[in-house]
Amino acid sequence: MKYDTVKFKHQPKIIGAYSIVGPKEGQGNFKDYFDYIMKNDLFGENTFEKAERKMIETAITGAIQKAKLKVSDINILVAGDLLNQIISSSYAARAFDFPYLGVYGACSTMAESIAVASTLVDGGYFENVVCCTASHFSTAERQYRFPLELGNQRPPASQWTVTGAGSCVLSQKGKGPRVTMATFGKVIDWGIKDVNNMGAAMAPSAMETMLAHFENTKTTPDDYDLIATGDLGKLGSEILIDLMEDNGIKLGLNYSDCGQMYFRRDQKTLCGASGCGCSATVFSSYIMKKLQDGQYKRVLFMPTGALLSTTATQQGESVPGVCHAIVIESYEE
Amino acid sequence: MKYDTVKFKHQPKIIGAYSIVGPKEGQGNFKDYFDYIMKNDLFGENTFEKAERKMIETAITGAIQKAKLKVSDINILVAGDLLNQIISSSYAARAFDFPYLGVYGACSTMAESIAVASTLVDGGYFENVVCCTASHFSTAERQYRFPLELGNQRPPASQWTVTGAGSCVLSQKGKGPRVTMATFGKVIDWGIKDVNNMGAAMAPSAMETMLAHFENTKTTPDDYDLIATGDLGKLGSEILIDLMEDNGIKLGLNYSDCGQMYFRRDQKTLCGASGCGCSATVFSSYIMKKLQDGQYKRVLFMPTGALLSTTATQQGESVPGVCHAIVIESYEE
Repeated sequence: MKYDTVKFKHQPKIIGAYSIVGPKEGQGNFKDYFDYIMKNDLFGENTFEKAERKMIETAITGAIQKAKLKVSDINILVAGDLLNQIISSSYAARAFDFPYLGVYGACSTMAESIAVASTLVDGGYFENVVCCTASHFSTAERQYRFPLELGNQRPPASQWTVTGAGSCVLSQKGKGPRVTMATFGKVIDWGIKDVNNMGAAMAPSAMETMLAHFENTKTTPDDYDLIATGDLGKLGSEILIDLMEDNGIKLGLNYSDCGQMYFRRDQKTLCGASGCGCSATVFSSYIMKKLQDGQYKRVLFMPTGALLSTTATQQGESVPGVCHAIVIESYEE
Repeated sequence: MKYDTVKFKHQPKIIGAYSIVGPKEGQGNFKDYFDYIMKNDLFGENTFEKAERKMIETAITGAIQKAKLKVSDINILVAGDLLNQIISSSYAARAFDFPYLGVYGACSTMAESIAVASTLVDGGYFENVVCCTASHFSTAERQYRFPLELGNQRPPASQWTVTGAGSCVLSQKGKGPRVTMATFGKVIDWGIKDVNNMGAAMAPSAMETMLAHFENTKTTPDDYDLIATGDLGKLGSEILIDLMEDNGIKLGLNYSDCGQMYFRRDQKTLCGASGCGCSATVFSSYIMKKLQDGQYKRVLFMPTGALLSTTATQQGESVPGVCHAIVIESYEE
C-alpha cells in the first residue's frame, strides 16, 4: 500500500463557510447550524436543476461574504457536483468573474475540492480559493434512479440525497481552522452491484484511505476529536467499523458519518442522507462551527464517492468507490 | 479583467507521453505521430464505453512506460472525460494502484489536468503525476446527440468526436519539455444555443483566456512557435481569429487548432475534430514530438471546453465555454 499524505507547510486557513439546504434538511439534526433553509426545493426557479445551480451561487456568495472578502478578492473556484457534466457548478461559475476548475469525485467532491484548493493556496499559486459542491434530491433521483412521479418504493439500504450546497473559502491569510493534511484516495471496487446500497460499495474505499492516512501520519483514531465520513449511511458506516476492526483499529465514539447523523429517525430516510451536499453542508455548518469554537481541535473529514453512472450499471459494471481525506485543525491564539 | 497566470518555479517536466486512436483518426493528418492505432472502435470490448475505458488504461500504461517509470513510481492520476460521471477515467483508475483525482473541463480537460498536475508536482506534493483524458466518437454521439443507428444527417457546423486517449507523465526529475505557466479560464457564455456549433460557443472563452494570458505574461503571439486551441474547429477558430483581431491582436501562421488540423478534407468531418481526445492525442503525439525535437521552443496549448449537458440544453440553456492555457517549453542542454 503506497499512498502519500500531503502535508501543508503553510496550512491554508478556512476563513469562511456557508451552507444552504432544502426544507426537509432544515428539519433534520443540523437545523440550527445551517445558514439558510429554503422554503421549497425549487428556490424560485422553474426546474430543480436550475434551483441546484442557484443554491451553488448562493453558497459561494455566502462563503465569500462570511470570509469578509469581495468577489474580486477570489482567485479561483474549485467545484463539482453530481449532475451530468457537473452543470450545476459550471453554470454557477458563469455568474462569477473568476476562473473555474471543475472536479468530480461523486459524493467525495467536498474533500477533493478542499484538498485541491489547499495545494493551490499552500503552494503559493493563489491567495483566496473558494470551494463548493451541492446535490439536490429531485435532480439526483431523476438522473440516477427514477422520475419522482413514478413514486417508487425505496429499498431498505437506500439513502436520501440531500438538497443542499456547502461552500468555503481557503486563504493564505486571515484566521480560521487550518487544513493541515490531505490523503488522496485510490479507486477501490469490491464488486458491489446493488446501486441501492451505496454504503456497502463505498465502505472499502473509506477503509483503504483511513488505513493509509493513519499509517502515513502515525496517528490513531484517538488523535482526532471527530472522524467524519461523508455519506456511508447507517449500513455503510457499520461496515466500515467492522472493516477497520478487522484491521486492528477500533473506531470509537469520535467516529461518525454525516449521512447517518443528518436526518431524524422519523424523517424516514432509511439508511440516512447521501449526496455531495450531505457532507458539504455538514462540514460548512456544524463541523466548521465546532472547529471555530475550539470544541474540535482536530478533525479527519473523509467523504466517500461512488463512481458509478447509469450507463455503467446498465452494462453490468460494479460500483467503485473513492475516499479523499483532509485534516482540519482549529487555530490557537 | 482580473486573472492570474501561475508561473511554475520548478517547471515540471513532461517525461513521457502516449497516444492511442481509432482507425479513422489513424488515417488523419497526425497518423505518423500516434503511438497506437486501434483496428476497430471496440478495442476487443463489447461496448464502446468499455473500449473508451480500456483506451485510457492503455494510454496511462504507455505514458508510464515511455517515461521509463514503473506503475509503482506514480503518485497520483489526474484524469477526466466526457462521459456522464467521467466513468471512463474512474473505471480506468480502478486498474491502477495509485490515487485518483477526477477533473472535468469538457474538451479542455487535457490542459486542466496538466495544469493541476503541474501545481501538484511544482508545489512539491508529488514527484510523478500522470494525466489522461479521452473521448470516443460512438459513446459521445449516443450520450450527447443521437444513437448511431438513427443515421442522422450532420449539420454543417458540426464536428467529429475523436476516438482517442492521450496521456502524459509530469515529474520533478528527468528530462523533457517543461510546463512553465498556466492560465486557468473563466466560464464565458455569449448565449449560443446551437449545440451543433460548439466552435462558436467556445471561441469567446478562448479569446478571454488568450487576452488574459498575453497581458499577464507580457507575451505576444510571436513569442510562441505554436499556439494551439483544442477543438474550435474550422468555424470556431476563424471566429477566434476575428475576435482577437477586434482586440488588436493578429494571430499568424503559428496559430492553429487541433480540431481543424486533425482530419484530411476527404474524411468528411465538416468543421473538423472535437472531443477531449482531440487535443489530448495531438498534444501527446505531434506537439510533444516537436517539443522533444526542439523544433518547437515554446508552445501555448489552450484547449476549450463546452460546459453543456443534454439536460441543460433541454431546459433552454445556452452553452458556456471555458479555456485553460498552459505554456510548455522545450529543454535546452
